[in-house]
Amino acid sequence: MRFTIEYLVTCLQGETIQEKALGIALEQSVELPSSVLDAWILNNTAGKVESIKETGEKTYLVECSYAVSTIDGDLTQFLNVLLGNISLKPGIQVINVDWEPIQDWFPGPRFGVEGVRINMGIPNRPLSCSALKPLGLSIDKLADLAFQFATGGIDIIKDDHGIADQRHSPFTERVKACVEAVNHSYNLTGKQTWYFPNVTTNGSKLIDRFRQAEDLGAHGVLLCPQLCGLEMMADLASSDVNLPIMAHPAFSGTYLGAINGFSHSFQYGSLWRAFGADFVIYPNNGGRFSFTLDECIGINQAALDPMVPYARTFPTPGGGVDRNKIPEWRAKYGNDIVFLMGASLYKHPEGIKAATIEVQEALNQ
Amino acid sequence: MRFTIEYLVTCLQGETIQEKALGIALEQSVELPSSVLDAWILNNTAGKVESIKETGEKTYLVECSYAVSTIDGDLTQFLNVLLGNISLKPGIQVINVDWEPIQDWFPGPRFGVEGVRINMGIPNRPLSCSALKPLGLSIDKLADLAFQFATGGIDIIKDDHGIADQRHSPFTERVKACVEAVNHSYNLTGKQTWYFPNVTTNGSKLIDRFRQAEDLGAHGVLLCPQLCGLEMMADLASSDVNLPIMAHPAFSGTYLGAINGFSHSFQYGSLWRAFGADFVIYPNNGGRFSFTLDECIGINQAALDPMVPYARTFPTPGGGVDRNKIPEWRAKYGNDIVFLMGASLYKHPEGIKAATIEVQEALNQ
Repeated sequence: MRFTIEYLVTCLQGETIQEKALGIALEQSVELPSSVLDAWILNNTAGKVESIKETGEKTYLVECSYAVSTIDGDLTQFLNVLLGNISLKPGIQVINVDWEPIQDWFPGPRFGVEGVRINMGIPNRPLSCSALKPLGLSIDKLADLAFQFATGGIDIIKDDHGIADQRHSPFTERVKACVEAVNHSYNLTGKQTWYFPNVTTNGSKLIDRFRQAEDLGAHGVLLCPQLCGLEMMADLASSDVNLPIMAHPAFSGTYLGAINGFSHSFQYGSLWRAFGADFVIYPNNGGRFSFTLDECIGINQAALDPMVPYARTFPTPGGGVDRNKIPEWRAKYGNDIVFLMGASLYKHPEGIKAATIEVQEALNQ
Repeated sequence: MRFTIEYLVTCLQGETIQEKALGIALEQSVELPSSVLDAWILNNTAGKVESIKETGEKTYLVECSYAVSTIDGDLTQFLNVLLGNISLKPGIQVINVDWEPIQDWFPGPRFGVEGVRINMGIPNRPLSCSALKPLGLSIDKLADLAFQFATGGIDIIKDDHGIADQRHSPFTERVKACVEAVNHSYNLTGKQTWYFPNVTTNGSKLIDRFRQAEDLGAHGVLLCPQLCGLEMMADLASSDVNLPIMAHPAFSGTYLGAINGFSHSFQYGSLWRAFGADFVIYPNNGGRFSFTLDECIGINQAALDPMVPYARTFPTPGGGVDRNKIPEWRAKYGNDIVFLMGASLYKHPEGIKAATIEVQEALNQ
């Protein structure tokens, strides 16, 4: 059995598309030229070019197929076939994978859009999210921020992704205090805000921290999959710990080359969805990072694509979302979206609670 | 206490270097603008711009310092401060870290150049290395290849990095057979070839596979740190398993942006050295990948830099090293180098053993 990877290939000086496409198929499987391969290997193990379609000057859509036996369900080896050695070759960008033949290898989101909506009791509208920051605050201050956001009615509070287990705010004590803060607010207001601590750490400690988050009453977790290894996210998503995962893009930006690496929609919307992200944070257009509107819409579409055999992932644009522009973004992105706002809420002249109340009013309209 | 990261910063349209440099320092620490930070956080937790030096049109060397308390020895958090969110911002490339204030966080190579030379009994000359390939061969055939290379006198044999634990050649049986092959050759020739199986796999299984390699008599291992997570390599390098690690660049190429990510010398020569690579494979200039000669020399210099507080790492250029050009490369790179040759040996008209004998003669001159 075989599965297919689709690439956008740019031919550079002196390259022909036939040679370059065959080069991809061989590099990502047998790593030897056809001339030194025996017939069995060539037919059974080597990657094959399935189609080449010209799409512009020197750019081509190329499909290659690979034998599932070259991976056998090992997710690091999947990533290797996906973009191992060709990450070093200019002009090759992965834009799609046909997940169907290999769907059992990946967990997909445990909850996804539907599961999160059911558990939150929010059937239709976009969700709101903010971050506890900055790194360096004491636990008391972080918990107080969580309380202000929660009493304003925010849907999800996450740790800033740089807050790990530093002496300022050790993990266990921080999670306890912030869970207590959002639950205290629930007792006052009747609205349950979810708190997602950052569990990102060394792969050997990660599952313990994930379990600890559940034991301490957190409602989900924040994870930087490209810092931990994407396959570790898949491990968490298929573990016995029953929490949603919000994936953060730290350390993933270099994969978004202009003609290299992964397309925006593939990395965040497709790959991270297969690997188990219930939410995928990406830098929104117009903020302090540099994604175009089309790239953002592409991520949303891939994350929500109903043809993919996994639960749908909540696109979570952040990094400069302005609280006053929610209606505009909602018109562009629809309702299956989470707005992640940071500085825009922290800067409100009347404080965080007032800012959050405004946001929730906009979302409830 | 603070430590310093050095960046090559390119100002794009509308950017000023003062703002961009400050943006880096804040983004990589507190993730909020100075205006909403209190004085204690600003002085103690926030990153600081230490110096800016113009080096060309719109390019600058920028040094920022960060409090060690923002990391506290968590290596994923170190990677986050190094290139987390700024991986998403164009025109920022990490080129150096001052390891000294934080040297205890990282293992560095367990053996390094000196340890490997002592254990191999090869005090001065360059080393030779080849790969067992292609993926899809049976264990018998892989072991036979290992035997041919070993009887030809090669120094190190590694698995191709795509060979994991597939049904073609399961890990345990493969390692047993290949160890037996190189040891059998030792009994015949008196020359001990080292065999490095590929242990790359999901982080939760990695340490077991590393230990298994030692138990089965392997002489070192191959690892793709960017597939497993760099911090997992550091885990292995500081574990109780006493084997050298050869690091492979699969999935790392996108970090080498023209004005983004990591410089070649930083990623392979400096970062991977701190994280514990005894050998660092990179695509040699003139092969089927695209590194320039200067980039290769830069990697060698960083890997061998005596001013860095870790053992020196063996630079291991591969990916198109021609067996006939060893004297030329040796003249350029010196003796502290490992030549990794694949297709060039497989293609020899008289076979692998004859090819290897020629290589060893060139190295012994």
